[in-house]
Amino acid sequence: MPAIEHLTVGSTDPPPVDGKLRLYSMRFCPYAARVHLVLNAKKIPYDPVYINLITKPEWYTSRIPTGKVPAVVVEGTDLYESLVIANYLDEKYPENKLQVDDPLRKAKDAILIESFGKVGSIMYKMYFNDIDTETFDQFLAALDDFEKELATRGTTFYGGNTVKMVDYMLWPFFERMGSYAVPDKPQFKIPEARFPRLTKWINAMIADEAVKQHYLRPDQHAHHLNMRKAGTPDYVIIE
Amino acid sequence: MPAIEHLTVGSTDPPPVDGKLRLYSMRFCPYAARVHLVLNAKKIPYDPVYINLITKPEWYTSRIPTGKVPAVVVEGTDLYESLVIANYLDEKYPENKLQVDDPLRKAKDAILIESFGKVGSIMYKMYFNDIDTETFDQFLAALDDFEKELATRGTTFYGGNTVKMVDYMLWPFFERMGSYAVPDKPQFKIPEARFPRLTKWINAMIADEAVKQHYLRPDQHAHHLNMRKAGTPDYVIIE
Repeated sequence: MPAIEHLTVGSTDPPPVDGKLRLYSMRFCPYAARVHLVLNAKKIPYDPVYINLITKPEWYTSRIPTGKVPAVVVEGTDLYESLVIANYLDEKYPENKLQVDDPLRKAKDAILIESFGKVGSIMYKMYFNDIDTETFDQFLAALDDFEKELATRGTTFYGGNTVKMVDYMLWPFFERMGSYAVPDKPQFKIPEARFPRLTKWINAMIADEAVKQHYLRPDQHAHHLNMRKAGTPDYVIIE
Repeated sequence: MPAIEHLTVGSTDPPPVDGKLRLYSMRFCPYAARVHLVLNAKKIPYDPVYINLITKPEWYTSRIPTGKVPAVVVEGTDLYESLVIANYLDEKYPENKLQVDDPLRKAKDAILIESFGKVGSIMYKMYFNDIDTETFDQFLAALDDFEKELATRGTTFYGGNTVKMVDYMLWPFFERMGSYAVPDKPQFKIPEARFPRLTKWINAMIADEAVKQHYLRPDQHAHHLNMRKAGTPDYVIIE
């Protein structure tokens, strides 16, 4: 598949598309993926514009104070920060409400999403350094809390018996976890015996329609990551 | 005034008080202050228990995964993270709704609170090192955005013509800014000429009833900070 165009230095911001919400994204970014998932789940028509985060367009950095993706344009205003955008979309667009109504459950979900930071920082280390057994063990230990949480909740999804906001906010990071084990390192696969509920959740998430529309396989994530680590980032999605 | 008791190593968790929400706090912590303000503004009866953050009680660290304040106990569940607690309380208790209803304004408020991090990290540097002119200039430059934002919004408060959630989430950090200028460093006072709207906002916030109930003067904050920097943290509020 040809590379997905990611706009870079010297580009111009494409004009808005009528009736579609503008989303600035990067095809492999887990934070941007959160917003793709919410838009897909709520069937909101959108127009993604992809940004090269290594050599960012000048117009993008001068516009979005963090310089990061995702960002959306709403009534002429730029919104950024993935959780802010996700909650905004959920409140603004009624179809398929993703936040739970009960304030206490909603607060617990927010804490769970926040607590993923511990797993995320280990993942980040494994992304950009060679993965080793000690770090992978720390990673699995941090994941134990997420297995336990599914047991405590007693449902297939963190959100209950259907996919909710908390699931979509966590999912993009889980989608990328399988990429450590490819192509030739099966010892870095998440062991199903230790994580039976998480394994079931992962399979159920892959089958979700909104996830399917943005899903990439572990080897596809691994390809992008390997190219980036080699100093030649590309945006080709291998078939 | 005698020192406010802050529980430490070897203590036990006091039993809950009937009809009052348990808040774990530290009297000088800006994040904990956010929750005090929301509780005050909504007139929710609460029972504060103060934690010594230098020598934390074992029961506290084994209970709250972050080991930080604030935390509240709700229906037998511990909630932590100041923004999560603030939003939970606002949704659960109807009196004096603090979040704005419009999803776009709410999203912009969330981004504004998030963007305070830049000011906050400079403040943190100035707290624990000797303050110097260069750092103070960076601090003022970061504050410019907050002056500008009040101009853009065209209201006394960030929340509009009355104090809203965004104001209470920002306020605790502003309450502490005056402590740099005391006792003998007037050059580190926020200049009113450069920040006319912020100055007006600060004065209006100090006059707010919920703020008054938790307010400490700059010299009171400075006293705690100086004791802490000297290695002898105390919790005396000087008169």
